[in-house]
Amino acid sequence: MFALHRGGKVEVVSSVPLTTRDDLSMAYTPGVARVCTAIAEEPALAYDYTWKGRTVAVVTDGSAVLGLGDIGPAAALPVMEGKAALFKQFGGVDAVPLCLDTTDVDELVDTIVRLAPAFGGINLEDISAPRCFEVERRVQERVDIPVFHDDQHGTAIVVLAALRNAARLTGRQLSDLRVVCSGAGAAGLAVSRMLLQAGVGDLAVADTRGIVHTGRTDLNVSKALFAAESNRAGLQGSFVDALRGADVLVGLSGGTVPTEAVAAMAPEAIVFAMANPDPEVHPDAAHEAGARVVATGRSDFPNQINNVLAFPGVFAGALEVRATRITEAMKLAAAEALAAVVGDDLSEELVIPSVFDARVAPAVAEAVGRAARAEGIARV
Amino acid sequence: MFALHRGGKVEVVSSVPLTTRDDLSMAYTPGVARVCTAIAEEPALAYDYTWKGRTVAVVTDGSAVLGLGDIGPAAALPVMEGKAALFKQFGGVDAVPLCLDTTDVDELVDTIVRLAPAFGGINLEDISAPRCFEVERRVQERVDIPVFHDDQHGTAIVVLAALRNAARLTGRQLSDLRVVCSGAGAAGLAVSRMLLQAGVGDLAVADTRGIVHTGRTDLNVSKALFAAESNRAGLQGSFVDALRGADVLVGLSGGTVPTEAVAAMAPEAIVFAMANPDPEVHPDAAHEAGARVVATGRSDFPNQINNVLAFPGVFAGALEVRATRITEAMKLAAAEALAAVVGDDLSEELVIPSVFDARVAPAVAEAVGRAARAEGIARV
Repeated sequence: MFALHRGGKVEVVSSVPLTTRDDLSMAYTPGVARVCTAIAEEPALAYDYTWKGRTVAVVTDGSAVLGLGDIGPAAALPVMEGKAALFKQFGGVDAVPLCLDTTDVDELVDTIVRLAPAFGGINLEDISAPRCFEVERRVQERVDIPVFHDDQHGTAIVVLAALRNAARLTGRQLSDLRVVCSGAGAAGLAVSRMLLQAGVGDLAVADTRGIVHTGRTDLNVSKALFAAESNRAGLQGSFVDALRGADVLVGLSGGTVPTEAVAAMAPEAIVFAMANPDPEVHPDAAHEAGARVVATGRSDFPNQINNVLAFPGVFAGALEVRATRITEAMKLAAAEALAAVVGDDLSEELVIPSVFDARVAPAVAEAVGRAARAEGIARV
Repeated sequence: MFALHRGGKVEVVSSVPLTTRDDLSMAYTPGVARVCTAIAEEPALAYDYTWKGRTVAVVTDGSAVLGLGDIGPAAALPVMEGKAALFKQFGGVDAVPLCLDTTDVDELVDTIVRLAPAFGGINLEDISAPRCFEVERRVQERVDIPVFHDDQHGTAIVVLAALRNAARLTGRQLSDLRVVCSGAGAAGLAVSRMLLQAGVGDLAVADTRGIVHTGRTDLNVSKALFAAESNRAGLQGSFVDALRGADVLVGLSGGTVPTEAVAAMAPEAIVFAMANPDPEVHPDAAHEAGARVVATGRSDFPNQINNVLAFPGVFAGALEVRATRITEAMKLAAAEALAAVVGDDLSEELVIPSVFDARVAPAVAEAVGRAARAEGIARV
């Protein structure tokens, strides 16, 4: 396990020849001066004559790394390197792992804003809630390149894609579905918001104290805002209470869900049990309890909900059109394109494509680029 | 010229396989978690299990780019990419171009300090004087990896190496030499300091108003400090005045030097005319005026003074031993090793090795690592 990581997992290589004096004069001084002057006069040329147009910064503060929590920036580096390797492999996007030695929101925002000139996008990663919301919003207000917190939006895109296909398989519209989501952190709220935006009938989210509703007085700002946007049915009580008769379970919080609770869901229930490494309910048990579609975060069960299905294509598409940000419409388009890759192969065991399906990133990229153009935020 | 730069000159590639589910589980989640935990418990393991031990940040604010001046961070990116390409090609060092959108010293320092966890060293580049001095000093005080402003120290190392060989060729000791340096900016002061430290007999530096001496009242802090350290002869007046009888001319300021001034130098004069693209005096003219050794910054004359002879090996050596900084002794060792590569091939046309001499970077790296160990600042 450790051997693979020895010496790191990504490297920076030259893509120009540097073996003769002429090579050096062209790639470095004096030849490079003309390129610099051109960009100084016309800043958009940075997209043509530097790596900006194909490169993102993968930025973390190490405060919410995988399930490990606040392990600090240096210990987060192996994850960011892995992410950078995936960006290149799956999206052809160059990604630079950057691990910042601060968890202060103002300092994170200022630092990331100052880093922007050399990059075409910012992928925020493993920054703990609720700071992640503010960091993303404030950086995006100050830079003209996309800022995307993958733990939130990448997860949301993949969950929505899987849910679209699960609904299609079971003959339902998104608007027919009542969803219950366990977990009201960064991923839980982002997924829930996106499902509502996509048109699910109703959705309630639960934190460790039970269903989030407007009557609760113990909610932080993010959850309180979300309480007002969701849970039209006015559910109260525990997560298990809320599951009674629900069509969809979205598990994003760890913990376990009793099989009886799955059995109490609506017929042909859809269960996304994404806790890693142990799903909230084992797929076999969920099926036995009556669930028709089960997805997990694991690669050894069918229907793996994996962010790598989203972020490489999302950034490839955004970079391709030099988008200034990534909008809701672009994320919804990404989810739709990702779902569509499954096509006629749709089955209980295939509501989301394999991470190795080579059609995924190009399809997502194309949809994201098209949506950016439609939104008027593409620069080419 | 522009075609070579299209799309940028460096890329980030994965160095691990990512084609099977097992590959993904090992390189990313869940396998990476154990590596993260290990580093969280023992931070030094970042050198073993991430790219930290072979990677430097090439950081600029775009304020003093080549001869172009303050062209801003985006326009500086082609230079930083070229530098990154050279780092890999000549030193096997991975380098990440980072162009910061601020020229405020406090902001630069804070930003660079926060970036440190993912890197094994910081190469500062093209930051204008006198801010560059303070940025380098203050960042180095706060991080435990080497900080090296290449415009200063890289140039100083190569000039000292060339001067060592030129002295040897002409049968002189460094202590026999009286040097006059035109240019009291970052490179001029750094080169001058290093030559004094290496033991040159006397050295005076000139800015646009003439020789820097303790009687002048128009000097900034850096120059005033340097006035006290240099010019033991108490020279005053113009650069040309100071050249009379001098053994060595070090040109780092652009402008021109009249051939009569070269003719007025001591016999067997040594002329380093490093202005680009036009040397302060043409090599042919300098030779005609009596100079025995002439070096320039250009690749189409003999004896090219090029920083690529220093920075790849300096950082390779510092990274190899996980040095915490780059000391004067390490720089002096680098210059000595670089000079020694010439060996018995020493001639008027070869006082400094070719940039393509494959022995250079390993020799410099070895000397730098050894010096770091002797200084007690190596961690392995």
